[in-house]
Amino acid sequence: MSTALIILAAGMGTRMNSDLPKVLHQIAGAPLLIHAMKAGAAVAPERTVIVTGHGAAQVEQAAREWDEDTQFALQAEQNGTAHAVAQAREALAGFSGDVIVLYGDTPFIQPETLEAMVQARARHDVVVLGFTAADPDRYGRLVMDGTALERIVEYKDATDQERAITLCNSGVICADCETLFSLIDAVDNNNAAGEYYLTDIVGLARTRGLSATAVTCDESETLGINSRAELAAAETAWQSRARQIAMEDGVTLLAPETVFFAHDTVVGRDTVIEQNVVFGPNVTVESNARIRAFSHLEGCHVSQRAIVGPFARLRPGAELAEDVHVGNFVEIKNAYLDEGAKANHLTYIGDASIGKATNIGAGTITCNYDGVMKHHTEIGANAFIGSNTMLVAPVRVGHRAMTASGSVITTDIPDEALALARAKQVNKPGLATKLFDILKKQKEKRQKGAE
Amino acid sequence: MSTALIILAAGMGTRMNSDLPKVLHQIAGAPLLIHAMKAGAAVAPERTVIVTGHGAAQVEQAAREWDEDTQFALQAEQNGTAHAVAQAREALAGFSGDVIVLYGDTPFIQPETLEAMVQARARHDVVVLGFTAADPDRYGRLVMDGTALERIVEYKDATDQERAITLCNSGVICADCETLFSLIDAVDNNNAAGEYYLTDIVGLARTRGLSATAVTCDESETLGINSRAELAAAETAWQSRARQIAMEDGVTLLAPETVFFAHDTVVGRDTVIEQNVVFGPNVTVESNARIRAFSHLEGCHVSQRAIVGPFARLRPGAELAEDVHVGNFVEIKNAYLDEGAKANHLTYIGDASIGKATNIGAGTITCNYDGVMKHHTEIGANAFIGSNTMLVAPVRVGHRAMTASGSVITTDIPDEALALARAKQVNKPGLATKLFDILKKQKEKRQKGAE
Amino acid sequence: MSTALIILAAGMGTRMNSDLPKVLHQIAGAPLLIHAMKAGAAVAPERTVIVTGHGAAQVEQAAREWDEDTQFALQAEQNGTAHAVAQAREALAGFSGDVIVLYGDTPFIQPETLEAMVQARARHDVVVLGFTAADPDRYGRLVMDGTALERIVEYKDATDQERAITLCNSGVICADCETLFSLIDAVDNNNAAGEYYLTDIVGLARTRGLSATAVTCDESETLGINSRAELAAAETAWQSRARQIAMEDGVTLLAPETVFFAHDTVVGRDTVIEQNVVFGPNVTVESNARIRAFSHLEGCHVSQRAIVGPFARLRPGAELAEDVHVGNFVEIKNAYLDEGAKANHLTYIGDASIGKATNIGAGTITCNYDGVMKHHTEIGANAFIGSNTMLVAPVRVGHRAMTASGSVITTDIPDEALALARAKQVNKPGLATKLFDILKKQKEKRQKGAE
Repeated sequence: MSTALIILAAGMGTRMNSDLPKVLHQIAGAPLLIHAMKAGAAVAPERTVIVTGHGAAQVEQAAREWDEDTQFALQAEQNGTAHAVAQAREALAGFSGDVIVLYGDTPFIQPETLEAMVQARARHDVVVLGFTAADPDRYGRLVMDGTALERIVEYKDATDQERAITLCNSGVICADCETLFSLIDAVDNNNAAGEYYLTDIVGLARTRGLSATAVTCDESETLGINSRAELAAAETAWQSRARQIAMEDGVTLLAPETVFFAHDTVVGRDTVIEQNVVFGPNVTVESNARIRAFSHLEGCHVSQRAIVGPFARLRPGAELAEDVHVGNFVEIKNAYLDEGAKANHLTYIGDASIGKATNIGAGTITCNYDGVMKHHTEIGANAFIGSNTMLVAPVRVGHRAMTASGSVITTDIPDEALALARAKQVNKPGLATKLFDILKKQKEKRQKGAE
Repeated sequence: MSTALIILAAGMGTRMNSDLPKVLHQIAGAPLLIHAMKAGAAVAPERTVIVTGHGAAQVEQAAREWDEDTQFALQAEQNGTAHAVAQAREALAGFSGDVIVLYGDTPFIQPETLEAMVQARARHDVVVLGFTAADPDRYGRLVMDGTALERIVEYKDATDQERAITLCNSGVICADCETLFSLIDAVDNNNAAGEYYLTDIVGLARTRGLSATAVTCDESETLGINSRAELAAAETAWQSRARQIAMEDGVTLLAPETVFFAHDTVVGRDTVIEQNVVFGPNVTVESNARIRAFSHLEGCHVSQRAIVGPFARLRPGAELAEDVHVGNFVEIKNAYLDEGAKANHLTYIGDASIGKATNIGAGTITCNYDGVMKHHTEIGANAFIGSNTMLVAPVRVGHRAMTASGSVITTDIPDEALALARAKQVNKPGLATKLFDILKKQKEKRQKGAE
Repeated sequence: MSTALIILAAGMGTRMNSDLPKVLHQIAGAPLLIHAMKAGAAVAPERTVIVTGHGAAQVEQAAREWDEDTQFALQAEQNGTAHAVAQAREALAGFSGDVIVLYGDTPFIQPETLEAMVQARARHDVVVLGFTAADPDRYGRLVMDGTALERIVEYKDATDQERAITLCNSGVICADCETLFSLIDAVDNNNAAGEYYLTDIVGLARTRGLSATAVTCDESETLGINSRAELAAAETAWQSRARQIAMEDGVTLLAPETVFFAHDTVVGRDTVIEQNVVFGPNVTVESNARIRAFSHLEGCHVSQRAIVGPFARLRPGAELAEDVHVGNFVEIKNAYLDEGAKANHLTYIGDASIGKATNIGAGTITCNYDGVMKHHTEIGANAFIGSNTMLVAPVRVGHRAMTASGSVITTDIPDEALALARAKQVNKPGLATKLFDILKKQKEKRQKGAE
């Protein structure tokens, strides 16, 4: 049976107090919407339709970056969840199969939960996702009769008996596509808010003699984000879980609460992550590596036994082979460091490839930008780049070559050659003392002038 | 009605285990005393008298830095709170109006609370600030009769019935100046500690037929600091509140618990603050900026859409215009970067102004200090400063000018000129290999010598 | 009376999910085993025998590094705690006195606790360390009769009445050496696991008419580590205690939860430690120093009134005299900075000594490595090292000497001399503009070529 997703992402999120559409606020380096899409991917949807509204263009762009086949439906006015789902009808033209309705601001639904809903759909016409609330408060309640879902009752319409129910409505619904839209057509807006509610389709389904049931998940999965404080709390919960999983997988975290993973970080066994390490998206660290304190990694790959930091920054395209050392105040971007290469101090390596066992001296900079374009630097194996060497790209340094410290390298260096670009040192006896005296007198003069 | 403040700040703070006077220990980058003064500012005091004792000179200096009109009264011996207040009499000579007595180690009193006390003073002769204690423990109790404050009873003197009272005494008192000192004169030291207690004035007032009342505040406002652990706990509470307010105001904090604000930090809406950011005093960040991880800001201004960090340090006088980028391992001090200027890697910019859209290459340093004085560097708009350029100040680089990487610039560069100060590169074929061989032999020799 | 320690350290620690032997996982920068050895040092053991098994070679090396007199006994198969202790018999040949059995994965036993056990041994043949468990769960229970320990009963064998006992068995045992091994000989493995249990010696002792007793300690002391999550929790507990002690000792921690101490960190009174500071092993900071935010210290000594950071890294052998300033993006390794010396920006000082009041300019690098060996740099007092000076070691800079910024210094500079190694600046009028034009055209061409 084919499955399609409708993800509601039109809301403004007033309580976020932000110009950014709510579903584009991030957890673990990915927009809330992408978390919802990742969750939905568990059912291998044939189509995914995102219902946009506020900030539609931005939302579309973010979704397309994640999955370029995503479809969109604009909900120009926000008239309720059923109205939102109705906008997806055209995008789903020609589709037959099950549809799951998800929410772009509800990032934590687990794959197993959606799989369970799809399975339940085989036996029931409408499947609603419920959860047992610790504090049911004003949630809608799922009124069950055995495994059959009788109806969903809003808190304000509920009897005392119904309010005693703790099984609550998450809003996530699964139904056959044709059935869904047919039910949606029957939803009216005769309520205080004048909105069309998706939950009404359960009652309508039962009236038509269709069956409904509920699948339940943990309350934490249904957490929706409505303010920045809730966003921060969700991030904390996400990180806490990610750290726990990393430790179970054999990663040592010296201070777990100071390590921040991205949604897609992969770290190998017996790798040690020290205090205060931040992972941006798209980072893989192999096993037995060490990420030292105060390091920042994004879009990079760190191989076995490599040592990174402290105070290192790996930017997108940084690729460290085995046993590479990247030390303090070093930035690597779009560069490959081959086995055993070292860049330990105050260095910028950008748009470069560095050969095996090559040593990059302190203060080395690949001058990759000429003000208009970026250029590539290539350094061979077993080379020795002296401290404070400027490598003006495009340039090639040969294998086993050497640069004298303080040299500006503008032309290629053959294998095994030494390159020098350096003015001769001259010592001027006594001149330091004289200069100090002159400067001090100037200062006194200046101060007198200021009086 | 005029108001004056007396702030008691004479205590040693033995439990702080410190040579620094207790009231000068800091929360959110400001001494406790300054927090008390800021709270007191809510009533627009005509005079502020700080009663000093231990470390009087240091305390005076700190207070004057905050408000140069502050007056001081020395309490040479610490004989109790009434005795302390009595020292302020001379400084308040000629003043008529209300006096509020605050404490230099009680930083969290809210403006609304003091305003409420002043308003209550219009109807009562003496106003005491009380709070309902979660655990009243050994606090003095406020014995009320309706809105009238009958007396303050110390825990050790209280009956069981009185001990059941949860409304406790904060010590903060407001009274007409003349009344206050007249009551103070009547306070005796017939008690176990042989001290003169300010709280005794309530009983004395009632004896004289004067009226007293209590204004109440949240217990957290009355928190006093007595040890470094309490100081740390107060800091945590302060930060937690500041983070909450920032999020409500529309600032995104990726990991709120890792962001440390100063008492006067201002951050605009939709600005994102990443993990591990520390704000020192006097920082303003406009809206839609991004402060990346591991950044440290003090005394600076960051305009809209600017990006700072990761690993950036903005020091006092750093002023970033819109769309400026300051990247990793970059320090900016007393410098203005105009719209769209970029300094992204391993750079020190001090005492400088940088024109619009100018690009500062990696490793650039403004050599602003000659060992005696600091000098200014000026760089025009649309300039391109090559990597590792030393700008020996005072020096001016023109608009659309360029420096070759590795150049030491000692004289001005005209607009549109290229400045070069660079030795020619020479490649010596095979010399690297020879040098490695020589060095290895030297090492072997040395090692043999060591055997 | 002489004392010996047996520390059981043979286990694999399956739940650690690690190739590293469990007892070598670290807390506060020291392996669990070293924590156990440090605890055991409280009784001034004449001999220490570590029973190794998994990763024996690594475990031996770590223990020897800490105490080279440590003895080892290999437990080739893990057949229970009594079997493990039995392996130590040979290593203790000739020893007479008390033996305490400790566990390599139980790092928190306090010195006072072991001292209490030794004292109790004077009055009883076997002394067991017990603790009152908040949740006794499946721990073995200590069945007492007054001060006499009757027996240890495993949870699964315990009656309901015995299960109600909250005094539990830590496994730590003290007995006379001869007695211990004699009892061990009698232990059998007639149990479900087929293992020899050390706790069985209590019952055997009582059967022989020997006396036994229990000494109790806080439950937190007996915490054993079995997973990385438990390791992280133990680290958190350790750090929390260390921070508390530091604050009581008069150290100011601006944000205690962000400061990470090592097991041997020493910090003096009225030193301020800002946010996000990490201490590796072997660091001493004297009083009235300031360690600014984002600093990383290992194996170094910071004297009074020195200021370190923000973003500073002190590596092993860094020795800062009084009033030294080490600023942002500065790394110091194996170097002495004399009184009042300053290195404030973007600098690497390695294998060097810097004289009093000398100023090291931004971007200075000691080029200490020639690709084969490390060499020393010596700088005199009151010298001024210009920005971006390369000091190619071995080299000596005299007192009151000066280097011009951007100089590569390869030969010694006499006292009071100025050293210069710098190409002359040439300004080429209009060339920047021409270059920009050429580059832009090249870019366009390239882009066209790509179409």
